Parts: sequence; C-alpha cells; structure tokens
Amino acid sequence: MKKVAIVGASGYSGEELVRLLLSHPHAELTAVTSRQYAGQSLAQVYPRFAHYPRARALRFSEPKAELLARQAQVVFLALPHGVAAEFAAPLLKLGCHVIDLSADFRVKSAAVYKEFYAHNHPAPGLLAQAVYGLPEVYREKIKGASLIASPGCYPTSILLPAIPLLKAGLIEPEGIIADSLSGISGAGRKAELDYLFVECNESVRPYGLPKHRHLSEIEQELSLAAGQPVILQFTPHLIPVNRGILTTLYLTPTAAATIDQVSACYQAAYGSEPFVRLLEGKALPDTKNVAGGNVIEIAWRLDPRTGRLIVMSAEDNLVKGASGQAVQSMNLICGWPETAGLIP
Amino acid sequence: MKKVAIVGASGYSGEELVRLLLSHPHAELTAVTSRQYAGQSLAQVYPRFAHYPRARALRFSEPKAELLARQAQVVFLALPHGVAAEFAAPLLKLGCHVIDLSADFRVKSAAVYKEFYAHNHPAPGLLAQAVYGLPEVYREKIKGASLIASPGCYPTSILLPAIPLLKAGLIEPEGIIADSLSGISGAGRKAELDYLFVECNESVRPYGLPKHRHLSEIEQELSLAAGQPVILQFTPHLIPVNRGILTTLYLTPTAAATIDQVSACYQAAYGSEPFVRLLEGKALPDTKNVAGGNVIEIAWRLDPRTGRLIVMSAEDNLVKGASGQAVQSMNLICGWPETAGLIP
Amino acid sequence: MKKVAIVGASGYSGEELVRLLLSHPHAELTAVTSRQYAGQSLAQVYPRFAHYPRARALRFSEPKAELLARQAQVVFLALPHGVAAEFAAPLLKLGCHVIDLSADFRVKSAAVYKEFYAHNHPAPGLLAQAVYGLPEVYREKIKGASLIASPGCYPTSILLPAIPLLKAGLIEPEGIIADSLSGISGAGRKAELDYLFVECNESVRPYGLPKHRHLSEIEQELSLAAGQPVILQFTPHLIPVNRGILTTLYLTPTAAATIDQVSACYQAAYGSEPFVRLLEGKALPDTKNVAGGNVIEIAWRLDPRTGRLIVMSAEDNLVKGASGQAVQSMNLICGWPETAGLIP
Amino acid sequence: MKKVAIVGASGYSGEELVRLLLSHPHAELTAVTSRQYAGQSLAQVYPRFAHYPRARALRFSEPKAELLARQAQVVFLALPHGVAAEFAAPLLKLGCHVIDLSADFRVKSAAVYKEFYAHNHPAPGLLAQAVYGLPEVYREKIKGASLIASPGCYPTSILLPAIPLLKAGLIEPEGIIADSLSGISGAGRKAELDYLFVECNESVRPYGLPKHRHLSEIEQELSLAAGQPVILQFTPHLIPVNRGILTTLYLTPTAAATIDQVSACYQAAYGSEPFVRLLEGKALPDTKNVAGGNVIEIAWRLDPRTGRLIVMSAEDNLVKGASGQAVQSMNLICGWPETAGLIP
Repeated sequence: MKKVAIVGASGYSGEELVRLLLSHPHAELTAVTSRQYAGQSLAQVYPRFAHYPRARALRFSEPKAELLARQAQVVFLALPHGVAAEFAAPLLKLGCHVIDLSADFRVKSAAVYKEFYAHNHPAPGLLAQAVYGLPEVYREKIKGASLIASPGCYPTSILLPAIPLLKAGLIEPEGIIADSLSGISGAGRKAELDYLFVECNESVRPYGLPKHRHLSEIEQELSLAAGQPVILQFTPHLIPVNRGILTTLYLTPTAAATIDQVSACYQAAYGSEPFVRLLEGKALPDTKNVAGGNVIEIAWRLDPRTGRLIVMSAEDNLVKGASGQAVQSMNLICGWPETAGLIP
Repeated sequence: MKKVAIVGASGYSGEELVRLLLSHPHAELTAVTSRQYAGQSLAQVYPRFAHYPRARALRFSEPKAELLARQAQVVFLALPHGVAAEFAAPLLKLGCHVIDLSADFRVKSAAVYKEFYAHNHPAPGLLAQAVYGLPEVYREKIKGASLIASPGCYPTSILLPAIPLLKAGLIEPEGIIADSLSGISGAGRKAELDYLFVECNESVRPYGLPKHRHLSEIEQELSLAAGQPVILQFTPHLIPVNRGILTTLYLTPTAAATIDQVSACYQAAYGSEPFVRLLEGKALPDTKNVAGGNVIEIAWRLDPRTGRLIVMSAEDNLVKGASGQAVQSMNLICGWPETAGLIP
Repeated sequence: MKKVAIVGASGYSGEELVRLLLSHPHAELTAVTSRQYAGQSLAQVYPRFAHYPRARALRFSEPKAELLARQAQVVFLALPHGVAAEFAAPLLKLGCHVIDLSADFRVKSAAVYKEFYAHNHPAPGLLAQAVYGLPEVYREKIKGASLIASPGCYPTSILLPAIPLLKAGLIEPEGIIADSLSGISGAGRKAELDYLFVECNESVRPYGLPKHRHLSEIEQELSLAAGQPVILQFTPHLIPVNRGILTTLYLTPTAAATIDQVSACYQAAYGSEPFVRLLEGKALPDTKNVAGGNVIEIAWRLDPRTGRLIVMSAEDNLVKGASGQAVQSMNLICGWPETAGLIP
Repeated sequence: MKKVAIVGASGYSGEELVRLLLSHPHAELTAVTSRQYAGQSLAQVYPRFAHYPRARALRFSEPKAELLARQAQVVFLALPHGVAAEFAAPLLKLGCHVIDLSADFRVKSAAVYKEFYAHNHPAPGLLAQAVYGLPEVYREKIKGASLIASPGCYPTSILLPAIPLLKAGLIEPEGIIADSLSGISGAGRKAELDYLFVECNESVRPYGLPKHRHLSEIEQELSLAAGQPVILQFTPHLIPVNRGILTTLYLTPTAAATIDQVSACYQAAYGSEPFVRLLEGKALPDTKNVAGGNVIEIAWRLDPRTGRLIVMSAEDNLVKGASGQAVQSMNLICGWPETAGLIP
C-alpha cells in the first residue's frame, strides 16, 4: 500500500481519480485538495462515493505542497495548465512521485509550449525529466520516472492508433487527418453558458480548429514515431454524451502496405496489451463499449476505392484519456500489476 | 392552392412532410398513405398535429396510384428505395408531379444504382427525365420537372459546400474527405435493437464505411461539378441527437486559391440564397441552430499549417436533408415563392 | 400591425419570444434589450434566427423605459422577479401595454409575494390592475388589460387541468398533489454548475420542495376556483430534456363524481379551446407532442382501486408555459385572432 | 468459489448480471444462455466485456436445465414472467439455487398473479418456498433459501423507503401514493417503436396507469409491513435516461409522528446497511449518484403546510432494482460478504 493524494479534485478528471483510487487495491487516498470545497468531505461533494468509509472521512483541504508531501508518496495533479507546474516543483523536491494530468510537462520544448499555451513555461527546468505517460509506448521509462506527464484525451485517442503504423512505415507521415468527437465532460467542470445542458443537448458542433492546443503534444509524439516532423490536421467536435471520444483517422498507406500488414502491425504492438481492444470482423468502435473503463478500442479499414486507410478509435476521455491512464502509470511506477484498480 | 399527397407517411421523413404541408400556405394535404396505419387519422398517429383540423379529418389510406392521382396534383414519395419507383411510374402517367425522397431516381446510371443498392433499377426508363432536386444547383431544371429525385441527407450536407468550390476550380477534385455526424432519425423509424434509446444514448459510433450507398449520388454530382470523375472518402457516424447532420470536409485548395477567393466564391454562389447561411467571423456550424428549419449553415477555414481547406456544414437531416428540400422543389414546380411554408 | 419590444431577451423565455414574434403576422419586433449583448444583432446572438432579415438588422440595446415606449406599443418583460416591476411602472405610465413573464404581478397580495420571494413587492400599487394571463380562464379580462401577469410554467400545467374540476365541484379542494417534471430550460440560461450538461444528462432529481415559489400563484388561483383556500402539495423534478413539463395530479373526486362527469366537464371547459388538447382513448400526454407548440395536452383516469382521479398534463414550458401564452395574451389585447403566430 | 449461470443473458438485466459476475471475487460464471445468440461468445455480443478472458472464452448456449445443473450451483433466471418458472422447477429438483429476476415467484398468491399477469401461474407448487429477495427486509430468510424471487425495480424503490415507516406505525397505511420515473432500460431490450431513441429522447410520459403489474408485489409487501391490506396509487413515467428510477412517495404521518421519529426510524432500519444511503441536510436523491452501483438513496421531508411526509428514493433500476440485488441475495445464500462484487 502507498499513500496517494489528488491536487485539484473538484473537476471531472479529479472526480474520476477519486473514483478509481477509492477502490484501488494498493493505493490509499489520504488527501484531496480544492480551494472551493475545502472543509467538506468527499462524500458531501460527491454523494456517489458516500458508501466508501474513506469518502465520508476524508475532507478537502487547501493545496499546500509541504503538507501533501507528508501525506502522500504519489501525488496526482488535476489542475489547469500553468498552475500544475507550480505544485510539481516543490513536490518533486520533497521526494514525491508526481503524476500530472495537465499539459505542463507533455511538450518537451518550452518554446512550443509557449506557442500553444500563450504563456511562458512555468518550470522549464523540469521538462527534461518528465516522461510522457503513455504506457503502451513508454512503459519502461514510466517505471523509473518521478514526474509523469499524463497524456491528453484527444492525444491518446490519436497516438495509440497512429504510432505503430508510423513506426512500421506502413503509413505516410504526411497528410494525416484526425477527426475527433468528444463528450461534454472534456470541456471540464466549468460554469459557462456554452456547456449548459440546453446548449449541448441536441447540438453537434466543431470547435477550436484549426490549431487546438493538443496538437503540440500529438505532433511531438507522431514526429518521434515517424522519425521526421509530422504536421497533423485535427478537428475536434462536441457531442452530447457525458463521456467518450471517437476519433477517425484518415491515413495514406505507404506503397507496399497491405491490410494484412496493418493487422499484423496492430497485433504485434497491442495483441497482449490489457487496455487495447483490437476489433475484429465487422465490429467498429463505440464509445458506449468503453465508458467507465480504461480500454481503447481500435478498428481499421482499407478503402479500395480511395486507397486510404481509415482507423477509428474509441475511449472514455476521463479514463483512458485522463485518470485511468494516470493510474496505469502509477501502477507501473509502484511495481503493482498494471491493471490494478482498473480491471476489477 | 394545389392538392398534395404523401405516399408512405409513417416514417420520419413522411411525418416531417406532414408537418410542413399542414401549415403550407398554398398546398392542401388531401391524402396520406400507410399500410400500417390505414384507417387511422393523422391526429391519432401523430398527436402533435391534432390541433390542425385537417389532421383530425384526414385518415391514412392504402397506397393506390389511381386513387392518389385523383386526390392530388403533387405526390411525395417517402418510401424505401425500390418501392418508390413502382409508384412513380403510374403517377407520372396519370399526370401527377412526383417528388421522390428515396434514392430511386438520384443516380442517373442504372448500373451504378445496381452497384450500390444491390438490385436492378425498377424503372430505368424514367431516369432520363428525373431532375436532382437540389434547388441551389438545379433551380431552373426543377421548375420544369415532373419527376424530382430529392437528394439524400448526407449528400445535401456535402454537395452544397463542395460544388461551388469545384466549379470555381478552387479545390482539387482528388482526395476529398467528408466526415459526417448524423442524428438517429437518419436511421429511419425502424424497430431494430441498434436504434433503441439505450443503444444510442451515450454512444458515438461510425458505421457503413467505407462504401455507403449515398456515395453514388454524391460522387455523381461532385463529378459533374468538377468536370471529371471524383472519388470521395466518406465516413458517417451516429450521434445521440434526434435531428441534425454535421459534416466536416477536408479539401485541398488549388495552387492559387486564397481564403478570400473561397469566401467570394461562397458569396457569389449563396449570398442571396434564402436557405444557405454563410457563417462569418468566428461562428461555426451547430446543428441546434438549424434544427426544425430548412437552412444549411456553412463555415470554412484555411489551415496555414497544413494548407488544407476545412469546410463545415450543419443541416436538419429531416428538413433541408429531406422533406424541407422536397417542399422547396414543390414550391419551384408550382411557381410559388420558394420559401413558402418553409419560413413562416 | 403593432410594434412590440422584449426587455430581457437573453434568457430562454426571451429567446422564445423572439422566435414567436419574428414570425408573427401582426406584430413587428422593434426592440430587444440585454445589457450583456447590447450592440450585437439578434442574428449574432441567436444564429438560428439569422434567415429573418429583421434578426440581422435589429440590435440589442440597453433597457431604457422612455426609449422603449417610443419604439413599441406592447412590451414583453422577460426579466427576473423584482426587476420586472421596475420597468412595468414607467412603461404603463407612458401608455404601453405590458406583458410581464416574471412573477412580479401574479400574486395579488404583496404579503404573500414577500413570503415566497423574500423581498418587498417593488410596485404594490400596480397589483390591482394586473390580470393573470391565463386566457382559458381570464380571456375577457385579458382583452381589456394594460398589465398582464403571464403565468409561470408549472402553474399553467397545474391550473388548466385543475380549475374546471374545482369550479364544477367534481374534486375535493383538500389534499391535491401535483408532481411535476420539468426540462432543464426551466432553470433559465444561467451559468451554474448544477445545469451543466454533464450534471443534468443521465440525472433525474427532485428539487425545491416542499415550498416552491410557484405555489403562491397556484394556490391563489386554485382557491379562487374552489371558492375556499386550497393548500397544494407540489414536488418539482428536473429531467434531462430541453423543453417540456409533465404534471401528474392526484385528486379526490367528490362523492357523486363520475368519470363521465369529469370528461363532460373538460369538454365543456376546453372542447373548443385552440390550445387545449383533451386526449381520448388510451392516449396519454407526452412532452414530445407539445414541444415547440402552444398546446397543453390533458388526460384523466379514475382509479377504481383507490377511488382517486389522476389527471396528467404536458406542455412546452417555454411556449404554453411562458412565451407562447404571453403572445396569446397579446393577441387578445390587440384584437387579433387568438392563434395568430401560434398556429401557422 | 462457486459456479454460476445466467439463463436469458441477452436482455439488460442479463447483461448487467454478466457485468457483475465477471468481476465477482467468489463466483465463476460458467454458462450463459440465449436462443438468439447461441454459439457466440460473450465478448462478441457485448464488446464492452471483451477485456475479461472469460468473456472471450464463454459462449452463449441454448437453455437446458439438465446441462445447466451440471455447470452451475447457482442459476440466475433473467427471463420473461411465465417462462422463468418453467426453468426454476427442474433446476431446483437438480439441486441448484435459483435466483429468479422475473415476477414469477414474487407474489405469494397464484390468484393475484393471474389477476395481474393474465395467465395461470406456471408453478404454483413452488410459491411457498420462494423468498422475496429484499435483503434489507428478509436477510435471514434469504440465507436459507433455495429459490429467490428477486424484487422488481419499481417495488424496490418504493418498498425500501416505505416499509420501515409502516412497521413503526409512523405513517397511515391508507392513501399512499408512489410517483415513479424510470430510465428507458426498464422497458427491456425490445425492438419496439416506442423505445427507439427518437421516440424517447426529448420525451417525458406516464404509462401503464392505473394498474401496473408491479402493484401486485408492492401491495403484498406493504400489507405485510402494515399488518393490514394496503392499496397503493402508483404512476410510472418514462424518462430519457439509460438507467435509474426516482420515486416520490406521498405519505400521511400518523397523529403523533414527528420528523425526528422518521429520521430515527430510518437510522434504526438502515443506519448500518451497506446499500442504503440516508441523505442528510439539504441533499436530495439523484439517479446519477447511484447509476452503476447497488445503492439506494433516500431522503424525506415533512411539509408543515400540508402535514404530509414526502419521501424520495433513487436507485439504478438495473442494479439495486434488479441484478445487483440478485447478486446481493447470492452473496447471502453462499455465505460470502454481502457486498462482495458490489462494492469493489
């Protein structure tokens, strides 16, 4: 058993971390912070957890690094970008493992960070030691890391399907298109008119194009996989579901690539991964089949009419796209079974 | 005033035609057919229309061409493909104007029809006289037509944004991608497990790729606009809303094309169209802004990073994507204001 | 044609008034106010109305009574309670007809108002001249009124089914229970966490019991109908739909009352009302059959096992429950057909 | 570990049993039956479970009692009423424990069963040995039972709040009203038009009143608690959520009853129950706080204006209202911790 804390547990990712950690077999949730809810118990703020004795006992506190370092060995940061880095630095100094769900340590270049997030990087000195927390790609590095930059929800849905194909040279690095559909929880727990029920229900809409912030980390990781710079076309859309991202990738197979090679590539990359579900036969991804779980579904089709390869993925944006993946990294860091607390 | 009938008024397109025709200032709804509901009044089957005296008086009948030709001068066919053509032939002979919402007369080639619909064309002799009922493109032809092939919902959402750019040579005819998101009414009023509330709610999923039937008419019309064969990449998705299609088009501008030329092209094509809303400034399409109306929204962005042109459209799949557009054709045929019954 | 204005057109009721008045055959919308949107056009704030030339031309202004009185003969107030009365007083002095959608003039007693709304009545001197704008009950008074207190959404769904039975002595005035289910738009267009999509979707919950503010006007009107004080049990619930209220009333028939008498009572009261749909046979109310329209559906059952009379109603909370009913009052005041602009 | 089987695993209750049993620490799922899906694996029919090795290995079979009795010690019946009893008889003879989720053994009187279910009871000889599987009420009887009649979804939401008050004499047995709101999964996985997404979304509607089948078991259990016959007023409504029942009870306190006595009564009855959440302070039940879990939330208010006691409950109709409660009974029968597999 290790003691874990969540800094910023009042948003949807934070709440999902609470859910996962309350029932984790090896982690003991010892602190949750929220300026807004300080003093209230987890059970009061989130009645759905009230049947856990710990949720009735544990109260939100103001976030203070020194105190947190005494309360926990692993600290999750579920904070806005810019703010997260301010907590990461002292917590690392005090010996904690830090798993950051914000964007602060995902992009290795402080210049690119500034380009996409419109402010100076708050802790550039830590960038070199951060490991991008995508276990299916960086498992060994994660095991030894003290600072995890847990990937974004859209990036996870794009990178896991694309990276094996790029590494294997089965697709061209040029002209990749990712068309993504996200549930409303992806917008966060913010009191804004745009995310009211009446504004989202019976509504389907693109947003944030053509230069969404997540491009910075997606292109970084695609470029690493391709061995050359990759520029991505990315269009996110808001869809009236609570949870889920469905991504459709439009890819150009390299000259010799066949559908069997693509299938073999995915089998080799993910055939024994516990959280990647390669769909066979006629099955296609569906967010309802991954909601609440840490699994990403992937299916692929070669279109004989256009010659394009279409790859589709589905994940729960709050689990494999955020908190579940962060717990997966924790499991690796702590030497626990990678599926602990994620598959009952 | 002209008398109009609807053959097959028990599906969602048929119901929408009922809605539009009950309040149309120049059309009098004199017959509705449905084998399933024969004998019941419109008000009994669709309580939402019960405050219209005609809905309380008019009863569903069995579909019989001879009778219909006596009851109506304009007949809408809201039937499955294959079945529609069987009614069109006798109705035309008997002097009716026929507006067919099925796919039967959209594709000019019986061979292409067979390739995509998997059965021989039921009335190939009528194909030559059918006019594709997209008023913004074929307005003059529609005015003189006796047989209208009213476009499909996906095709409308793709063709209206793409055709002006192809005609103006502002985009390459190669490599066009259409990624579409449709509300569940697009699947029709069918008692199938896949479309139950619980199976669709909290679900987002692609389907029918890579060779959806609508490709046949879309590629035909894109090819006509481009003056050369166009092969389209098309991926439809099901989204948990009742109504609405959101399409994102990925296009390659031709060498000289600028964003100002694209804007000017759309202004020239649609600036005075009553049912095309060109979005300005930061606005992006949203299905909630077109639900219930006959308007299609279009927005466009040139991505300086990738060089691609992204065009997005939103329409109500049952109105501009089906029944509203069919009424628009009727208005043209009958010499009424084109917006009659469509904008109060 | 008369000129009309809307004060406070940025909420859901205000937006619905805009929708109805833009297509009204006799009213010309000449002013809309909103501090938040002042300077923007209706089309910019509500893209769904952009195909109306007036929506592109008309800009939101700051609310100023003197200016409004020059711009319009009829002024709708879609403001929070307390604020509405401040505008009503000067507008009435300046000769406008005022139709207030807030609660400010619904309760005839300033003391009861204070009990339920927790502040002194802002204009008690106007209470005597205000007419409660329920046309099916107060049609003649409305015709001659200069100040209309348009009823609340819940009250309309309860009063229309209950009043005829009370007046006819068919039910006991004691022990009435109203269990109501409201769509989320009933909460208004407020940026609060409770009304975010993720908090409302997949959620069903009671709220505001046992002493909801609307009780004040409901009990006032029930008491008038009964000729004696009526105390109501009222439980509202929030349901994840955009629009609609479904109310179930639990009533005790008086000794001699039969189901045929109840049916006859409703026929006598509402048989020729254009906006009341009395359901026959096995039909039961369904909010989807009234959404977007000004109709209220009513059905009733006598339970032989319990002896109770169950009456159910469905309405669109924004139309018959708010803006449509307000337009109905305007039609009466102005001597137009009562259904003008409400049934096309 | 014990071996368990599910007969009729193709409906929503059956699927939910699969979910719970795949992750149960002491039960091994060894057989699932479905005529429709015979031959297919659990993973093929329910992709969401495909990351469980057992779901990939276990195939649906035709339901045959003799075979099932060799495969499992505990058999769950998730079948329509009438059919369930046919399986229960042979399975019991062959020594299995049978937990029936249908209505077949809930009502102790074959005559009442016939009155409500419109056919003769298929196995009246077994009625005497069946135990009503409401653990909070019949825990000790369940432990020794071989045949469990697991309660219906509506009954659970009504009985758990009402029984302690009736037993304590705090409410009158006369005049009880239960107004219930159910998610669409309560209608089962049936391919019927009424339950299509488009028919349920943006719809709220009552149904099945005034004599819903569930009244038979509810009144039986209320009468037992009251020590006298209880007649219930019950109105179910369909609400567009996947899961959840929200029930509002209107009760008449007995002369001396105080709100403190009610609170004390609930504390005494349920204060240490793992699956009953008594809400304190201002909290009210919300289906989203119980979705996916086996918990029922209960809150109560005494209305000083009417003198009535309002009690509200929320549960997941598929878990505490069906499959979770059935697993709870299994845990009791098998001597496992009652929360095994229900709270991780």
